[in-house]
Amino acid sequence: MSKLALLGGEPVCKFEKTELWEPDRARELALCKRIIDERAFSDTGHEIAVQFEQNFKEQVAGTEYVLAHNNGTSTLLGAFFAVGVGPGDEVITPTYNWICSFAPVTILGARPIFAEIDPDTLCLDPADLPNRLTDKTKAIIAPHLFGAVCDMDPIMEFAHEHGLAVVEDCSHSHGATYDGKPIGSIGDVGCFSMQGGSPGGKPVAAGEGGVVATDNRHYYERIIAMGHLNRYNLKDELTEEPLNRLTSPGWAMVKFRPTNLSLCIATVALDALPYRNRRIQENYDKLLDLLKDVTALKPIKEYPKAQNGGYYGHMRIIYQPDEVGGLAPEKFQEAVNAEGASLAGRSYEGWHITPPYDTGMAYYDDGRGAISPSQGYKAPKYGDLPVSEAVIPNILALPTMIDPPDGYIEAFAEAIKKVQENYEDLL
Amino acid sequence: MSKLALLGGEPVCKFEKTELWEPDRARELALCKRIIDERAFSDTGHEIAVQFEQNFKEQVAGTEYVLAHNNGTSTLLGAFFAVGVGPGDEVITPTYNWICSFAPVTILGARPIFAEIDPDTLCLDPADLPNRLTDKTKAIIAPHLFGAVCDMDPIMEFAHEHGLAVVEDCSHSHGATYDGKPIGSIGDVGCFSMQGGSPGGKPVAAGEGGVVATDNRHYYERIIAMGHLNRYNLKDELTEEPLNRLTSPGWAMVKFRPTNLSLCIATVALDALPYRNRRIQENYDKLLDLLKDVTALKPIKEYPKAQNGGYYGHMRIIYQPDEVGGLAPEKFQEAVNAEGASLAGRSYEGWHITPPYDTGMAYYDDGRGAISPSQGYKAPKYGDLPVSEAVIPNILALPTMIDPPDGYIEAFAEAIKKVQENYEDLL
Repeated sequence: MSKLALLGGEPVCKFEKTELWEPDRARELALCKRIIDERAFSDTGHEIAVQFEQNFKEQVAGTEYVLAHNNGTSTLLGAFFAVGVGPGDEVITPTYNWICSFAPVTILGARPIFAEIDPDTLCLDPADLPNRLTDKTKAIIAPHLFGAVCDMDPIMEFAHEHGLAVVEDCSHSHGATYDGKPIGSIGDVGCFSMQGGSPGGKPVAAGEGGVVATDNRHYYERIIAMGHLNRYNLKDELTEEPLNRLTSPGWAMVKFRPTNLSLCIATVALDALPYRNRRIQENYDKLLDLLKDVTALKPIKEYPKAQNGGYYGHMRIIYQPDEVGGLAPEKFQEAVNAEGASLAGRSYEGWHITPPYDTGMAYYDDGRGAISPSQGYKAPKYGDLPVSEAVIPNILALPTMIDPPDGYIEAFAEAIKKVQENYEDLL
Repeated sequence: MSKLALLGGEPVCKFEKTELWEPDRARELALCKRIIDERAFSDTGHEIAVQFEQNFKEQVAGTEYVLAHNNGTSTLLGAFFAVGVGPGDEVITPTYNWICSFAPVTILGARPIFAEIDPDTLCLDPADLPNRLTDKTKAIIAPHLFGAVCDMDPIMEFAHEHGLAVVEDCSHSHGATYDGKPIGSIGDVGCFSMQGGSPGGKPVAAGEGGVVATDNRHYYERIIAMGHLNRYNLKDELTEEPLNRLTSPGWAMVKFRPTNLSLCIATVALDALPYRNRRIQENYDKLLDLLKDVTALKPIKEYPKAQNGGYYGHMRIIYQPDEVGGLAPEKFQEAVNAEGASLAGRSYEGWHITPPYDTGMAYYDDGRGAISPSQGYKAPKYGDLPVSEAVIPNILALPTMIDPPDGYIEAFAEAIKKVQENYEDLL
């Protein structure tokens, strides 16, 4: 029993199906049938679309205004534009992040500036913000990655002190809170991707979709003008000068509208969110409890005011190679997976050492573009973000589980314990 | 019988339902069910997505490369970026056009320059291009509006002479040709919106969707890098230096991916396109024949090499007020509609005299933005485009008809003839 599966032993975690929860496909299909019957694919004023926005606002975002979008990236584009990110500006992002969380600033002519993560939470480190500030800094992106909530108080404090906007990327953490407030309602604008299909995908998954949320009327109107052309309430909602001069297409710089088919899928997912979040948290707590003696894996910390949640994808956990004789994280992961338990990897490298940001790249053949070296982009290099560089290679990830089969969590923990106990066989 | 319905007479065109053609809702639903069952909403390599692109390429675009998009606007954004439109550049568009055909250049920092339309075809007038050329001109947008095909030969000749790119907006005219070649395959990049739901919506309607098409490998790769993050074939398709250095998200400046639910709807619409286009053309020809003695309405001309087609929305027709005592076009339209025949209006005004372009507008509170007067935007004024200004107010539109009820076309023609014959009662 102690011979590792990777070395020919018997695996300890043997389940054909590891998630028993099923989305309500019948209801998804019934809602889609209604849209198909009514030819209402693109009708922003349709009951399903209006109701979804209302429900998301009340149940998730907790803001005065929300707008359904065609994807999460477009919510971020709208948010950055709304707060005034434009040509020549800089936006601070943690280097450990999903690229779509910050790359939309580049189409606006702005540039991402990479900051450190807190090695205990894997979130943006507020203490590193002063090191990244220049006179071009316009905004900070605070991504609540994989369910982990950023420490918003010091981020907001720094932002206010320096006149910066804060965009919260809540794509992985629908339903999480900070200081009792829903994430997305603390910064200037909150962005929620709804990419993927439940039970995979974002906590509220639409296939392709997103929601942008704000309490700021000016930002709300700017996002409508930018890309919500012919939205049912556009003429009523554009009240500010000079936006109220616009005709029904608004500025139409881009188009943000989701198809109502996606909002049908999201409607069903939204109703399942409380159950999903509660179950994932329970199972996560149970698994961590079973792993409490496994010194090779250190759970991420939660900030005092944070209630992590949503938990897209996998729960990050920090591998401690020193506890297992310096065994490489990839080898530890491989050994656990051979036992039949799926331990995932870090998903992202640091973007400051990843193309196109590692060297910069011209977006145009003639050398133009926000991250073009010929336009003054200074490529970061390895060593610039030592804390992140040290921790990122050791990030591993536990599965999110809604309704795992009986005994699965125990067997999963067993697999990890077995590898920890027998790590010397792998050295 | 000769008393106009508008004046209390009996209407001559009385049909409860004017379109008998029905989309294959059952097949749309069955395809969506497959995507729902397989949770494949966002899988770009799914058979339905790959097959749709292949079929659209072979049956409509006729180009080497196509990419399905989440909307038509995003195909245009991709196209303009691909051909190198960037900060400070200018793009020539006819003033009579849908705003999304050109406004995406503004998010790239470029500016639309408005040109005249040919008053006989309502398409971009190639003869006006020299008047709009500056040293900042980068591209021309050639929109094939409402089924009418632009005169591509002189447009391409001018573009080649001056080193400009040509983007064809084919959103209204899927299936039309020029010189025997499918539109979209003549310029540098072709863009097809698939917005709406059949029988309304674009000739191939997806709800929300679009297709971008090109024979140019460089442009194709640039569009993928810009916004097709994690596309199934991205790493294989980015072959050029330095794009081949990028990781699977590419540049991720924006996100272009459609949901496969939309491609299900488009798949069904694509199969119906040949029937739809044939029937609309037959009915259009029949109606025009019945109207040949109505001097108040002049059909638009077709360029010698053009085979108009697709026919989104309504068939433009040019009202001749001088033939009916100077009666206002709105009054003529109102009178025909009172007879029970739905004559539509012009849909767009000239953009050079419409907000935000009539005055310019800062996209940012601090005055930045491509069409900001403080950044050198020179607002056009009434009088700058006299040909367009004269003809646009007289544009009216006949319905597109796939399977109208028996007698409808005749009654429709009768309604128009009745108004022409009795116009003096309206003066």
